[in-house]
Amino acid sequence: MNHSFKYSLLFLVILIAGCNVEKKTDETIHNSEPVFLKGEKISSNNFTGTVWLNMMGANDTTLHARFGNVTFEPKARTNWHSHPGGQILLITEGRGYYQAKGQPARLLHKGDYVEIPPNVIHWHGAGPEEEFAHIAISLNTDEGGAVWLGPVTDEEYGEMNLY
Amino acid sequence: MNHSFKYSLLFLVILIAGCNVEKKTDETIHNSEPVFLKGEKISSNNFTGTVWLNMMGANDTTLHARFGNVTFEPKARTNWHSHPGGQILLITEGRGYYQAKGQPARLLHKGDYVEIPPNVIHWHGAGPEEEFAHIAISLNTDEGGAVWLGPVTDEEYGEMNLY
Repeated sequence: MNHSFKYSLLFLVILIAGCNVEKKTDETIHNSEPVFLKGEKISSNNFTGTVWLNMMGANDTTLHARFGNVTFEPKARTNWHSHPGGQILLITEGRGYYQAKGQPARLLHKGDYVEIPPNVIHWHGAGPEEEFAHIAISLNTDEGGAVWLGPVTDEEYGEMNLY
Repeated sequence: MNHSFKYSLLFLVILIAGCNVEKKTDETIHNSEPVFLKGEKISSNNFTGTVWLNMMGANDTTLHARFGNVTFEPKARTNWHSHPGGQILLITEGRGYYQAKGQPARLLHKGDYVEIPPNVIHWHGAGPEEEFAHIAISLNTDEGGAVWLGPVTDEEYGEMNLY
């Protein structure tokens, strides 16, 4: 084979190496993504689908607050429930929903937050395609713990415009 | 030029296109890294160095909570201060410190959290080399706002084992 062909083959090898380095960088960034630990699978009738909880706070009772990181597999969600002292959600991964009873569901992205007033009946959870994670901070817990109601049925979940 | 050389040139063009797509993917992931927006530079005597605040919560006064994302440039920090209702810190980026008055400074990494009891005099901020960010949630704010004291001097900051 002639010289120009040999050189172009050498150039091919260099380019292929370059592409592989690019792929490795990409994978590293993916692996470093989650900010907070996923914790343990929740075994509870208050959730639909697989949900993980990394319970963090509530060591100091003078704060009247309990908080942890909650991760939902696609389609997983809480039951309908309310908090006597209210709750804050800080979205750390993926896309999901918050819905207050009788209102349209709100689409949530990584970086969004939700302020849930005391005693408002609501649910939160993942969209249909992506894992979804948020820090949940229950506030004014001296007013009492969460009041749990029935599941969000597949019909109720299906009523939303999914993404 | 001969046929095999023409084919290898065509292959080069395809590979170069492939590499460019890879780069774009990589850049997108980089840009989506910070979980919460950085917000605006704080202009206040209660901080040393450059600090950014993205104020989020406190729209609903029934929660008695105010929260936002705070980003510190390397060496930037709060003054000594306390909160009548206590505060929670959720570390979202980098490495920094929390120190309660009279106690050793605590090194904090992305994913860590701190529960600060009511009226404990403390400071928090970045280590010497990395930008540091946390969500700060002030609790039980019906008990009053933060009580601000003097700066953390370079001597006090220098006393820590930095990383």
